Amino acid sequence: MSIPENTKRRLVLLNRLLSTFEGKTITSQKIEELAGWSAAVVRRDISLLGIICGASNGYKVDELKSKLEITLNLAAKNQKCCIVGLGKTGQSLLDSTELEDSPFNIVAGFDSNVNRTEVLRSVFPLHPTTKLCEVIMEEKIRYAILTVNHDEAQSLTNTLCECGIKGIVNYTQCVLTVPRNVKVKNVSLLTALETLCAGAIADDC
Amino acid sequence: MSIPENTKRRLVLLNRLLSTFEGKTITSQKIEELAGWSAAVVRRDISLLGIICGASNGYKVDELKSKLEITLNLAAKNQKCCIVGLGKTGQSLLDSTELEDSPFNIVAGFDSNVNRTEVLRSVFPLHPTTKLCEVIMEEKIRYAILTVNHDEAQSLTNTLCECGIKGIVNYTQCVLTVPRNVKVKNVSLLTALETLCAGAIADDC
Repeated sequence: MSIPENTKRRLVLLNRLLSTFEGKTITSQKIEELAGWSAAVVRRDISLLGIICGASNGYKVDELKSKLEITLNLAAKNQKCCIVGLGKTGQSLLDSTELEDSPFNIVAGFDSNVNRTEVLRSVFPLHPTTKLCEVIMEEKIRYAILTVNHDEAQSLTNTLCECGIKGIVNYTQCVLTVPRNVKVKNVSLLTALETLCAGAIADDC
Repeated sequence: MSIPENTKRRLVLLNRLLSTFEGKTITSQKIEELAGWSAAVVRRDISLLGIICGASNGYKVDELKSKLEITLNLAAKNQKCCIVGLGKTGQSLLDSTELEDSPFNIVAGFDSNVNRTEVLRSVFPLHPTTKLCEVIMEEKIRYAILTVNHDEAQSLTNTLCECGIKGIVNYTQCVLTVPRNVKVKNVSLLTALETLCAGAIADDC
């Protein structure tokens, strides 16, 4: 069954929330209190996982977690990723511990500046962008973390899509044009601030 | 009028898209082609700006841009931000040029490790987190960029909300609990990858 994008986004966060939640059961009201989505939205989202439960008893946390893991595809191990662009943002991800204990594994880095790929140290190999397609196809890399300058962003995105990348985490400010089978998640600081700023309008501006 | 969250998110990206678009007019079909939202969704979003236009002629880019700027509150200059947490991610933002020519201006950084705030160099002052409230209220800072370890994330969020922060760009993996008048935008790499991975299910997993 197809789950709407917004539900998926909330379910990913719900899964994160439960990873540190200590009770054995959790009610939709409690989730509302912790995450800010209304209890009704929470119950509808969870019903899409095929879990039905009386609001008064709450959901069994273990059951919810294992269902989320399957539905969100997080049980799949070793999902290979690469970093494209080794400027300041890319470098800050080189020895990041953020993906430890996650299904995601960065296996390659790329930059069009060969000095960078030769000088920088990393636990995974760094290549010039000329080898992008070769390495991605050989290693069967699924996800790209795009941290290049904006003038390179769309052309590298085209290449990434051509060599079979399934999703792009976009740290650039560009709105990337991709084919329908490729997903983009925008995480640029500027876009995030603009979204917060737009969100503030209705409330207090 | 209140604009739905998802529309706001798309309008922020539409505004970015138009900033590099060179034509004088743009049709909803062209926007669909570039950004991936369906032309019908685009027309509905834009109608919420109060702009109505025949699909065949396209929208006047200048009119669209100025309406977007007002609606998204981007005409407001000097919206003050601070960085909370000066580890690797926070440091990579210290002399970032990403917010240049934007309405956003980082005016302070904070870390609970006084060594960091004394040793690191930055164009804006760095303070120990004990001074968080004092500086935020004095400087009237609206937005916080949260880049701390996850064990500190919620307690610092509580402090940020108490001293009147309107929005948080959340680089941590934590699901932050905030009051209704505070907005959170999650940009952690892990959350982004999980969302892409969840998004891939319906299509090809």
